[in-house]
Amino acid sequence: MADSAPESVRRHLSARQVLAANIVTHRRALGWSQEVLAFEAGLHRTFIAHVERQARNIALDNLERLAHALGVEPFELLLPKTDISGK
Amino acid sequence: MADSAPESVRRHLSARQVLAANIVTHRRALGWSQEVLAFEAGLHRTFIAHVERQARNIALDNLERLAHALGVEPFELLLPKTDISGK
Repeated sequence: MADSAPESVRRHLSARQVLAANIVTHRRALGWSQEVLAFEAGLHRTFIAHVERQARNIALDNLERLAHALGVEPFELLLPKTDISGK
Repeated sequence: MADSAPESVRRHLSARQVLAANIVTHRRALGWSQEVLAFEAGLHRTFIAHVERQARNIALDNLERLAHALGVEPFELLLPKTDISGK
């Protein structure tokens, strides 16, 4: 059944969690603040902050803008583990 | 600059195009109609139809529902080429 358990329980990390972690990782690898990423993606800084806090159910077109601003493909922002920094 | 050219021109396929193609591919591989996928994902058939026609700027939570219903990870629905059918 589609809704037998919360995604986070059934499937380790939710898409929001994965996305948030990947955006932070890629943004920091570029040495960018949330402001810089917001500017490059044509979005608001508070929007970036909300996505990074998993408080936003981001739409695909904006996910794509963020990916392109960060120099990656959209699917890369949803890869369960993109630890490019060795954090 | 973030908005110098349309995504589809600058970057081959847009995220919407990739998503639509992958959903159709995975859905057909399962032998599912749009109705079945809609049921399994807890969404409306017209919603599925719109996503497959790239007419919908789908939100991440729904992309995740579709992925789980199709038995794949969310990032897989955004992979530029998921031709599992050999079509």
